[in-house]
Amino acid sequence: MTDFLDACRAIVGAANVLTGTDMAGYLTDWRRRFTGSARAVVRPGSTEEVASLVRLCQEHRVPVVPQGGNTGLVLGSVPDESGAAIVLSLARMNRIRAVDTINNTMTVEAGCVLEAVQNAAADAGRLFPLSLAAEGSCTIGGNLATNAGGTAVLRYGNTRDLCLGLEVVTAQGEVWDGLRGLRKDNTGYDLRNLFIGAEGTLGIITACVLKIFPQPQAQLTAFAAMRSPDDALALLSLTQERCGAALTGFELMSDFCLQLVAKHFPQMRLPFPQSYPQYVLLELSDSESEEHANQLLEAVISEALERELIQDAVVASSIAQSKALWNLREHIPLAQAEEGKNIKHDVSVPISRIGDFIRDTDVLVEQAFPGARMVTFGHLGDGNLHYNVSPPENGSPDAFIAHQEEINRVVHDSVNRFGGSISAEHGLGALKRDEIRRYKSEVELSLMRTLKQALDPHNLMNPGKVI
Amino acid sequence: MTDFLDACRAIVGAANVLTGTDMAGYLTDWRRRFTGSARAVVRPGSTEEVASLVRLCQEHRVPVVPQGGNTGLVLGSVPDESGAAIVLSLARMNRIRAVDTINNTMTVEAGCVLEAVQNAAADAGRLFPLSLAAEGSCTIGGNLATNAGGTAVLRYGNTRDLCLGLEVVTAQGEVWDGLRGLRKDNTGYDLRNLFIGAEGTLGIITACVLKIFPQPQAQLTAFAAMRSPDDALALLSLTQERCGAALTGFELMSDFCLQLVAKHFPQMRLPFPQSYPQYVLLELSDSESEEHANQLLEAVISEALERELIQDAVVASSIAQSKALWNLREHIPLAQAEEGKNIKHDVSVPISRIGDFIRDTDVLVEQAFPGARMVTFGHLGDGNLHYNVSPPENGSPDAFIAHQEEINRVVHDSVNRFGGSISAEHGLGALKRDEIRRYKSEVELSLMRTLKQALDPHNLMNPGKVI
Repeated sequence: MTDFLDACRAIVGAANVLTGTDMAGYLTDWRRRFTGSARAVVRPGSTEEVASLVRLCQEHRVPVVPQGGNTGLVLGSVPDESGAAIVLSLARMNRIRAVDTINNTMTVEAGCVLEAVQNAAADAGRLFPLSLAAEGSCTIGGNLATNAGGTAVLRYGNTRDLCLGLEVVTAQGEVWDGLRGLRKDNTGYDLRNLFIGAEGTLGIITACVLKIFPQPQAQLTAFAAMRSPDDALALLSLTQERCGAALTGFELMSDFCLQLVAKHFPQMRLPFPQSYPQYVLLELSDSESEEHANQLLEAVISEALERELIQDAVVASSIAQSKALWNLREHIPLAQAEEGKNIKHDVSVPISRIGDFIRDTDVLVEQAFPGARMVTFGHLGDGNLHYNVSPPENGSPDAFIAHQEEINRVVHDSVNRFGGSISAEHGLGALKRDEIRRYKSEVELSLMRTLKQALDPHNLMNPGKVI
Repeated sequence: MTDFLDACRAIVGAANVLTGTDMAGYLTDWRRRFTGSARAVVRPGSTEEVASLVRLCQEHRVPVVPQGGNTGLVLGSVPDESGAAIVLSLARMNRIRAVDTINNTMTVEAGCVLEAVQNAAADAGRLFPLSLAAEGSCTIGGNLATNAGGTAVLRYGNTRDLCLGLEVVTAQGEVWDGLRGLRKDNTGYDLRNLFIGAEGTLGIITACVLKIFPQPQAQLTAFAAMRSPDDALALLSLTQERCGAALTGFELMSDFCLQLVAKHFPQMRLPFPQSYPQYVLLELSDSESEEHANQLLEAVISEALERELIQDAVVASSIAQSKALWNLREHIPLAQAEEGKNIKHDVSVPISRIGDFIRDTDVLVEQAFPGARMVTFGHLGDGNLHYNVSPPENGSPDAFIAHQEEINRVVHDSVNRFGGSISAEHGLGALKRDEIRRYKSEVELSLMRTLKQALDPHNLMNPGKVI
């Protein structure tokens, strides 16, 4: 196989074929739970180099693990332990190829870091709305491969909805140029959406055409306190009716979430002097003015207070205050980590079932694991909860974590009863590949296998992931 | 094959197997350009009956042509002349299965007429925004199969974007229950989008989960006059910046379009006492109030007049006036038909290229066919033009129409040079199936063939369409 590595070097140059300890950063996943092994890490600099590498891998039957920023949470971008695969890093393909402010599109390469894409849009006076915690490291190719969610899905959709066209290297090493910047194109099968969300198992996304938007004139943040998730849902409906598409964020968190933040980050100020069972952080983006956004938000809050959907509310009156409110939300996972080991779930249910889902699942987890502490927060406007479970306060964390699979089972079975998804925005990767078989019908699994077999008959594209 | 028809009757009942002259309405396309032949028209009443019929057709190797309202414009829903196929009409599957006003979804069967879906949403105080000329006859299943566009794409997207889940009978006669009402679900390949837009060639859509929206508080229509498509584009950018998602319609039409309407429908009043080269009809939908919408619209128009992007404008001050303005737009194809035979194109280009596309293509058509009269109008906000061509004023229509293929060639080649699509919202059907081979790469065609072969290996699902 020296021949093989030499052939790789001939394609990308010796400096871009890493072996031995140089591969370290590419083999371990973001959460440092797993380290795989690889023949080499290869870093192509162009679409043609990616295509040549894939053809070479087909010839030698070498598996290919495409990798962007390697920030995935489901072991989708690291190789298995066999050492048979190469990691194909897209990191060098990071050019912004074009920005069109009339068509409101930009064409970028897969290895662009999400923040660089956001910045390039901003430099052109536009908004690229995809935003998530890893945006300083993750790449747009990885966002597309996993159909990433984030904090603006309510208004702008998932990554899938932000993409008009793709360039893909197929499993056969051919280049599909589907880089169209069209809002309407009904000329055949939707190849674009098939590659998006496939986590690199059907082909390698090398570039894309993204939608960009006019920048809002104002963004306003408010924090409201309420009795229950059901009241939060009623507030969501009210806000959507009154504000339409101006509502861009709607995040739910329980009182226990805020208590953990207060405990582990005592310098952070909580918005209310007393506690309430649940809170919502909501954000309006306005195309007119801050004054207009303020009027809208004040009117909604007054009505919600009057109808007793909420007990109290604060509206951020400065960017600093707005940041402080978002900080509370974003410190929940950090506070939970400070509290100790825990078990995470990234689930979604129909929005209307959220209250019932939380109620039922809390009871089931508590029955099976008395004292378990639920850290429940998430993108309520999308039906997406991070339903995380911490060990009982005085129990042994390790003893609790040993039950991870049983706890997953309780939560995922409950999700399934409510018609939900066990991976709302993280994908399946290697981590949930077996788990999903429990919840998808044989018909659906069989359709997925048929597509995989048809497009990648030798199972060389990110094998062991998704299906 | 009497056995086969008896077996069909055993599945759906004798009354729902039509033969001979009873089939007439199902065999001719909407524009009455083609009449095919079929073994029978079969009208199942449930998903299970559809599945049984497809299994029966697999057993007997009988092709299946799924049909909704049969309003398609590309010969996608009628059988060929061989008489080998059955037409499988979904018309009896027309139940609204569920409406959820908190999740903002409705679950409906494929045979529901679009207008019935709109009405069911309205009855629940919600908006289902898909709207197009055939809405009184077309079915939601057909809308999904062709990923229909219509007049609200600018704000709400194509039919694809309005669908969260599907129920599909596969080519093997299995039922895939993908009727999820989730905004986020990243658990495998995007089967939903693969079946949407496939025009019945990969499987039969039997039901779907659709997104619904809060109803706007006000809708306002304006009509503006300008010098050129480029000025119309500048007005589009300005309006999107000032109004954000409130802009729901932006329709371009040339002066010649309005002249034809005035000539053939003299009772219709034109909005301005004099002529201008181009016009835009724009529509705002406001979640606040009519007063607010009016302020927004007046501000945009003032600014556009000041910047000389537009020369004149009227704002409808009543629903009747608004209807009258939309009527002008909707009478363009009718007026063109009154003027005589013509050649239609449903094309899209990147929005930023529209001005150049019209300019270049007008020159090319005029060079090849002197005196040809372009009736150019469409959904400018989506980059979608109906670039229709009428014969020279004093020439022979039939002699001109005989050149249809050459005229298509000039227009479609031009579309292709601008990175556009030769079927923006109508699909390929049988009509554009050969034409598309000229414009799609061999890689893309090959991927499409691979998918078709994998999912429908005996080529029984709507054969001769798309690929």
